[in-house]
Amino acid sequence: MNEHIAKQFDADLENIRSRVLQMGGLVEQQIVRAFAALETGDLMLADEVVATDHDVNRHEVELDEACAHLIARRQPAASDLRMIMAVIKTITDLERVGDEAKKIAKRARTLHSGDMPFVPRVELRHVSATAVAMLRKALDAFARTDPTVSAQIARQDKEVDAEFKSIMRQLITFMMEDPRMISSSLEVLFIAKAIERIGDHAKNISEYVVYMVKGRDVRHIGLEAIEREAAEG
Amino acid sequence: MNEHIAKQFDADLENIRSRVLQMGGLVEQQIVRAFAALETGDLMLADEVVATDHDVNRHEVELDEACAHLIARRQPAASDLRMIMAVIKTITDLERVGDEAKKIAKRARTLHSGDMPFVPRVELRHVSATAVAMLRKALDAFARTDPTVSAQIARQDKEVDAEFKSIMRQLITFMMEDPRMISSSLEVLFIAKAIERIGDHAKNISEYVVYMVKGRDVRHIGLEAIEREAAEG
Repeated sequence: MNEHIAKQFDADLENIRSRVLQMGGLVEQQIVRAFAALETGDLMLADEVVATDHDVNRHEVELDEACAHLIARRQPAASDLRMIMAVIKTITDLERVGDEAKKIAKRARTLHSGDMPFVPRVELRHVSATAVAMLRKALDAFARTDPTVSAQIARQDKEVDAEFKSIMRQLITFMMEDPRMISSSLEVLFIAKAIERIGDHAKNISEYVVYMVKGRDVRHIGLEAIEREAAEG
Repeated sequence: MNEHIAKQFDADLENIRSRVLQMGGLVEQQIVRAFAALETGDLMLADEVVATDHDVNRHEVELDEACAHLIARRQPAASDLRMIMAVIKTITDLERVGDEAKKIAKRARTLHSGDMPFVPRVELRHVSATAVAMLRKALDAFARTDPTVSAQIARQDKEVDAEFKSIMRQLITFMMEDPRMISSSLEVLFIAKAIERIGDHAKNISEYVVYMVKGRDVRHIGLEAIEREAAEG
């Protein structure tokens, strides 16, 4: 590749990467707003989150298109191609995180619509903060092309999974004590499940960063192996 | 592209496509076996499904790698590239379907392990058959590069969503009548949720086929627009 083309490729790729981060920022905002709607019962805010999901989807479609164009026009070599593959995978996960935010907003609407007078008091703030922090960290790792945080995120994912199980046990107790709690408890359970999924997606994204940098696929190999990978630097 | 290179590209792409179908067949088998384990209480079978998930994951990693190699070596033009992008997206969804099969097998194990004497009798056979049929149809559409079935699959996805809601209502009734049913009902609820997700993934795959053929992105545009797309032939 001559120097001019190489520069142009870098500029195009940088443009795509910054748009991924923009999409990531939007998705993060969607989760935070969905939770605010859940905590405050602001139904207008919940509606806004649902409506804004279209923007998230548009980002995904446009970025897929941009990646295809970049490959077709610049015919990148192996390492650049890995970067683009990582982008394609990352935006799929971001779009799914957006879906989870939308689902949380919808359930916030159901819980606050007045049809459910018996709502269990379950603390979701900590686990949702962890999931959002994981996502932010994964996007940060993507921005700085830093593979070392993936082990840390994998550990946090285990924490989130454990917290989900603990929330589920609490909800079972509520339901057993008062059957009128059952419907609303299931809504809360699915919200907790959505948070747990956001953690999974953040973990996926951090693993693509490792793939992008090292060309080795760390998906599906377990936490210990990821830590070895990170330690190998 | 000269004729020799074009032929070689076609052969490579065909090879990748047939491996995707092989992966699809394995994933379909995983769902069917997970359900058999659930219905019969065969714990060995459940364990086998969980263990075989590694094979599904290996397929995904190898196919990603094959796609990257194909792009790097053959530098495909726009329409071929679309095909490869569709493959990359499809295998991500197939891998997630495999995860759902694994989750069903694990919950089958929990339900049959003897710790849960009070298990609600809920009919999952119909909805799971629909989800498997959707997946088979989506893979068939992928094999024949046929975009016309996507509208049909989108309609079936709505049926599956409605069935999921009906199952949830039944489970709420069971839980209200007998609190000892609560824990096992939640297991069944998550199994139903896994089936609903399999339907979502099948829908995603059928939409990639439309993108592959028409170069237009039908994700996120709603059922009516998909039907228009299909009618335009």
